[in-house]
Amino acid sequence: MHDKLIVYIEQYSTLQLTNEEKALIVATFQPKKLRKKQYFLQEGDVCKYAGFIVKGAMRQYSVDEKGIEHIVQLLIENYWANDRESSTMLTASKYNIEACEDTELLILTRAEMLDLIEKIPAMAKMVFLMDERNSIANQRRLNSTISNTAEKRYEEFASNHPQFIQRFPQHTIASFLGITKETLSRIRKQATK
Amino acid sequence: MHDKLIVYIEQYSTLQLTNEEKALIVATFQPKKLRKKQYFLQEGDVCKYAGFIVKGAMRQYSVDEKGIEHIVQLLIENYWANDRESSTMLTASKYNIEACEDTELLILTRAEMLDLIEKIPAMAKMVFLMDERNSIANQRRLNSTISNTAEKRYEEFASNHPQFIQRFPQHTIASFLGITKETLSRIRKQATK
Repeated sequence: MHDKLIVYIEQYSTLQLTNEEKALIVATFQPKKLRKKQYFLQEGDVCKYAGFIVKGAMRQYSVDEKGIEHIVQLLIENYWANDRESSTMLTASKYNIEACEDTELLILTRAEMLDLIEKIPAMAKMVFLMDERNSIANQRRLNSTISNTAEKRYEEFASNHPQFIQRFPQHTIASFLGITKETLSRIRKQATK
Repeated sequence: MHDKLIVYIEQYSTLQLTNEEKALIVATFQPKKLRKKQYFLQEGDVCKYAGFIVKGAMRQYSVDEKGIEHIVQLLIENYWANDRESSTMLTASKYNIEACEDTELLILTRAEMLDLIEKIPAMAKMVFLMDERNSIANQRRLNSTISNTAEKRYEEFASNHPQFIQRFPQHTIASFLGITKETLSRIRKQATK
């Protein structure tokens, strides 16, 4: 199960791990399995672990006072499940992270992550590149939400994340894009013409 | 000039730098001075350098098709000036980064940053913690922009960044908060009552 994580770190960082470093990674990351509809994190809890997704799919969402879900992130293999604000500040999370399929993760605490970053250059480089990618994706999503029409948002999403379109149900994708299921259905019909 | 950066890295990471590591940092970061109103980055250019601000104040902004400025970030000592999307993807930047006071920076390229992260554990840990802080701040700013009134946004900003209130002119702070100068002036009068 750790093999996929090791391949991921080496590919992402373009650095090779020593056997000692690999052993430290295997000893640190603990396996965790969730069945479909189980939670990795529930609103109100402190997020103690970050999880690397080896297999499966998850969604991260908040629920407003009217009981409406707002999906902030969709996650599949090679993504990380986490609420950084909660895990850093040790505050109650505003989010739920729920398995949309049977899911296998490798988890570690923030203190363990800091230790690995200090000891393993490939891990440090991988985390830097991942944060860079996330920061760009968040900036783009913010800009897209502020300035684009629903059609344009769907078009960008479908071209940047074709795998998500296959993997998640339509109502989940509609919520992620902040549009109704009916609007999404209309846009998809137009797009296939 | 590099002393402040070295103190910053050691304090932020809570790790001590060896003399060899300090020498590598001094050899890598190049000093750059800007007079007030000079640009660190101009729209349309590729952002080749990240800059650690040793002294001074800057603002990062985009200009829309009507010629209106939108301030995305205010920067002072110990902040980093950068456009990560442009420096990672090598695309033309949408942003300008302009000195609001005479400013001194220590700059390095993305390749040099990656090299330091690989070689210096304290640098890797500092960058991780900084990205963590930025990711939390961006998430909060997005939530605040979406869900709060102008009064509440000013209140949060003033309590999180009292030093910015002293340092930047009112019209700059109004633009950062996405409100008019008149609205800001009204809110400040109410707040001092």
